[in-house]
Amino acid sequence: MDDTIAALATAPGKGAIAIIRMSGSKSLPVLEKIFSTGQAVKDIHDSLMTLGRIVYPDSGQTLDEVLVTIFRNPRSFTGEDVVEISCHGGPAVIREILNLLFENGVRLADPGEFTKRAFINGKMDLLQAEAVADIIESQTRYSLKQSQNQMFGRLSKRLLLLKQTLKKQLSLLEVELDFSEEDIEFVSRKELKESIHLLIDQVEELLKSFKFGKVIREGARLVLVGRPNVGKSSILNRLVEEDRAIVTAEPGTTRDLIEEAIDIDGVYFKVTDTAGLRLTEDKVEKIGVTKAKNVLSTADIIALIVESGETLTAEDETALKILQSVNNQAVLFLLINKIDLQKNKIKMINDAMFKRSLEISAKTGEGFTDLKQALVGLVVGSNIQSDFAFINKARHSDALRRAKAALTHAENSLREELSSEFVSLDVREALDALGELTGEVTTDEILNDIFSSFCIGK
Amino acid sequence: MDDTIAALATAPGKGAIAIIRMSGSKSLPVLEKIFSTGQAVKDIHDSLMTLGRIVYPDSGQTLDEVLVTIFRNPRSFTGEDVVEISCHGGPAVIREILNLLFENGVRLADPGEFTKRAFINGKMDLLQAEAVADIIESQTRYSLKQSQNQMFGRLSKRLLLLKQTLKKQLSLLEVELDFSEEDIEFVSRKELKESIHLLIDQVEELLKSFKFGKVIREGARLVLVGRPNVGKSSILNRLVEEDRAIVTAEPGTTRDLIEEAIDIDGVYFKVTDTAGLRLTEDKVEKIGVTKAKNVLSTADIIALIVESGETLTAEDETALKILQSVNNQAVLFLLINKIDLQKNKIKMINDAMFKRSLEISAKTGEGFTDLKQALVGLVVGSNIQSDFAFINKARHSDALRRAKAALTHAENSLREELSSEFVSLDVREALDALGELTGEVTTDEILNDIFSSFCIGK
Repeated sequence: MDDTIAALATAPGKGAIAIIRMSGSKSLPVLEKIFSTGQAVKDIHDSLMTLGRIVYPDSGQTLDEVLVTIFRNPRSFTGEDVVEISCHGGPAVIREILNLLFENGVRLADPGEFTKRAFINGKMDLLQAEAVADIIESQTRYSLKQSQNQMFGRLSKRLLLLKQTLKKQLSLLEVELDFSEEDIEFVSRKELKESIHLLIDQVEELLKSFKFGKVIREGARLVLVGRPNVGKSSILNRLVEEDRAIVTAEPGTTRDLIEEAIDIDGVYFKVTDTAGLRLTEDKVEKIGVTKAKNVLSTADIIALIVESGETLTAEDETALKILQSVNNQAVLFLLINKIDLQKNKIKMINDAMFKRSLEISAKTGEGFTDLKQALVGLVVGSNIQSDFAFINKARHSDALRRAKAALTHAENSLREELSSEFVSLDVREALDALGELTGEVTTDEILNDIFSSFCIGK
Repeated sequence: MDDTIAALATAPGKGAIAIIRMSGSKSLPVLEKIFSTGQAVKDIHDSLMTLGRIVYPDSGQTLDEVLVTIFRNPRSFTGEDVVEISCHGGPAVIREILNLLFENGVRLADPGEFTKRAFINGKMDLLQAEAVADIIESQTRYSLKQSQNQMFGRLSKRLLLLKQTLKKQLSLLEVELDFSEEDIEFVSRKELKESIHLLIDQVEELLKSFKFGKVIREGARLVLVGRPNVGKSSILNRLVEEDRAIVTAEPGTTRDLIEEAIDIDGVYFKVTDTAGLRLTEDKVEKIGVTKAKNVLSTADIIALIVESGETLTAEDETALKILQSVNNQAVLFLLINKIDLQKNKIKMINDAMFKRSLEISAKTGEGFTDLKQALVGLVVGSNIQSDFAFINKARHSDALRRAKAALTHAENSLREELSSEFVSLDVREALDALGELTGEVTTDEILNDIFSSFCIGK
């Protein structure tokens, strides 16, 4: 990788300032050609923003007045020589400077290539590289916090601890195999069983964290259901008005239904109003073939809305059973709306079905503070501690599942007192799967998959 | 202006990096509260990018890992204490950091407020402040170059030279008035006349540069006219394909007609294809009430397209006269299209009407190099010299016109040997008008007009 790359590092569009970043061995020679300041490039200190002019080398004419910062290898983001040009943030300036770099043998960076180089040069592991992209994509405080944890290597350290003991035992086991004729046990089978068992427990715990990690990253899906005119859209509107609307990049998958992305106290919620969706048994089959079923089946929280003063009818309860059959993972909330109208609240039957039952008024806003606290509490729970490590991508969960399967296999082989060779193979497979997470074990394919989803300039 | 301001300085949206800029006396104390690094803020060197973490002061938790650069007053863009926070370029990061600043007594900057403070603190004059905005808005190399010239004070220096002699003479004239009873001439009337005359010449020259400056900044309007099927849209398409299309921010004013903004060799052209616009006398009245008339009347260049092998018919010539009556400022080009079909070219009559006559083929691209050279040459001409100063805004031309009027008045008064008081008043008025350009003489209203058109963060 001898070539030098450059790209706009700030968002495209107009701003007061734009940053053009260049990385590679040609960075400093190219800068020397196009940067005019009081001193030679070799005399410019690292990390010092230096005022000067980008000039066209042939005419000597000024292209822009800029601030240039040099980060010499290895003390840079990529580990290579990096130059950051802070120029005026307009389209002609950005294009002209990039063209000037390209004319001097620098090429446009591929998506994620700066971060990929940082990974390849050992500046960060794969989980941290993914976190760079996640930080930038973060829409809410909690998703940002999650990504920062990953960026600071919290999950990487956790995995490192998981692997250390097992790695040591594996190498002893492999030595043992070399001396297999002599029938010596270098590793206590009991200790090996124990550490494998412990590892399975911890892998399982991480696997469980996937749901939470995913919800924080991609948003918790809250679906509002209930009979017409019970106030679903009023509840949705009040949530949108009181909280910060998120401009989601991904196009809505539920065009027929109304979905709003909002940030409640730093937690990302995707709220769907299933207007017109009536939950009677007759309709079940029809729901089955509509998009509504998808919405229900992917919900994290389903809120059934009823009117204050009403009781749950048999029909309502049937509907609830249907909901649960579509999605038995979702948490059920009961929202008793319009408490501004009906003050003689009637005790609801079958409250036990619901995780929470709340009295609200979409009209006056009464009860919404409690509702939002309940929603946030449900997602965040006790999970947000500063040392909590979790996974949030299918790639992570896939690698962990393979690690768990191999470990379980090893555990069985040990129990059945099979040859150490089988155990050794399984343990190695598990360690490889865990190594994929941080990028110790990796392929070009995995790397391309990960970095091609980045934007250019990252 | 004791308050401290902050804003996103880079373009809104997602990028690898975003810059949040803060300016004012609270910048350093606020930074101290939220920036965690190995040293105290007072020990951080000016202009040195310093790695650290932005932390929530109450919890001590990390918000983002950032690079912070301090520019202490007066050695900063605004002349105040300035802090630049280079953070990850995602929406949650940017919002959380800005919120943290706002919670600590910093407020969101008004549009253009950073540049306005730079002007008020004497870091740049008004023409240079306007150039900051123009540089960012620049779409092509020439408009960028024009703005850079203005940024580097080329026009300001020119104006300064213009004023110096006259200012000296005015002060002598005013002393003379104090001694008016003694009838002494401190200034030779002949010299005064000469310098006023010279100034009028130079003001006129700058006024003339307005058209060019405006065209470079806003684009030269090229209108394609000709009978149906003569190839107007093919010519437009080829220009768009061969050259860089400009994404204009301003909405098209000619929705019924097809307008494309393109960058030919660094010059900005707005090309309109008047498809379906037939130029017969019958149609003139109808054109008069359509948008087409507006397009023709604002054209800088009108290209009449005919087919190779044809001659100009009487009808064509009538059409031309109409074109010229709608707009006698525009330059006329004759484009003889389809030379790939017809090789027996017939000498066109009345070539003298046209500034240029060119043979082209929209199909093969023949002649387009010449066409583009001719177009660019027409706009740029000999105007682009590195020391060429020009104006490009109505505000400039308005102030210069007032200066010219006052100077002409003074010249007349001198000729008629009127009292020096009249001359003195007129000269002062002219100097004030020239002072408005650079901002020596200004009002809050003028400043607000100028800076409110900037974006937030500039």
